Amino acid sequence: MEDYKNKIKTPLLATDGIIKLFDKDEIFQGIVLIERKNPPLGFAIPGGFVDVGEKVEDALKREMKEEVTLDVQIEKLLGVYSDPKRDERFHCVSCTYICKAYGTPKAADDAKNLQIYKLEDIPFDKLAFDHAKILKEFLQEEANLF
Amino acid sequence: MEDYKNKIKTPLLATDGIIKLFDKDEIFQGIVLIERKNPPLGFAIPGGFVDVGEKVEDALKREMKEEVTLDVQIEKLLGVYSDPKRDERFHCVSCTYICKAYGTPKAADDAKNLQIYKLEDIPFDKLAFDHAKILKEFLQEEANLF
Repeated sequence: MEDYKNKIKTPLLATDGIIKLFDKDEIFQGIVLIERKNPPLGFAIPGGFVDVGEKVEDALKREMKEEVTLDVQIEKLLGVYSDPKRDERFHCVSCTYICKAYGTPKAADDAKNLQIYKLEDIPFDKLAFDHAKILKEFLQEEANLF
Repeated sequence: MEDYKNKIKTPLLATDGIIKLFDKDEIFQGIVLIERKNPPLGFAIPGGFVDVGEKVEDALKREMKEEVTLDVQIEKLLGVYSDPKRDERFHCVSCTYICKAYGTPKAADDAKNLQIYKLEDIPFDKLAFDHAKILKEFLQEEANLF
């Protein structure tokens, strides 16, 4: 059985979070983008790998805490992004969630810096991976709510 | 870089499809459940592992063709199911989609047998993995459409 298990090769599994940041009066501040410390450089929504033995939602909450020091509430699954070319390093599938958080994020771990962007100011030309595509789908999703 | 890649361990990635089967007059026939040939035994929605280099949606279409000989159209992502205990063999995350298909399915590959179930006849007590939970969420999702 161990042999059988070791023969199965599937893509790496990651999770990313589009964090909608609110102040204590429930006023929307923007979404949190990090500036990456490691290649590929550029801006990105925060995220990371799912550990074996960990639920994807728990991995997301852990990564958001590690990278931007926020406790997030998950609102919904936006999509599963799995184009083999979305990450030039290896085939990595992202389960991407929309989340909500309060407070003041700080860049940590893989994040060199972070910035809060209003939806109309998202720097689409500076985004790493397929995060421009993901954020366009997010804007579409948010637009559908109204 | 190769070393770095090999150190990353994430759960196995699979994809499963809830296939809504229609006849040529667009009359709903039921959903397709397979009887598993390999342990864990029982009924299940068809599915399988995602290959490295393959999009999850392509893996789903390939698996549906291999296991039940149907060409499916993907309607929507139902959810990502990642409880480490959902599969007793290993930690395996399923991206589960709702699909539509026409024609006559045949059991092949991992499927010993298959059966078409009307929504009110789904054998919840005979389902492997967490497929009872998944199919309950599917019924909820379908109910929300009306």
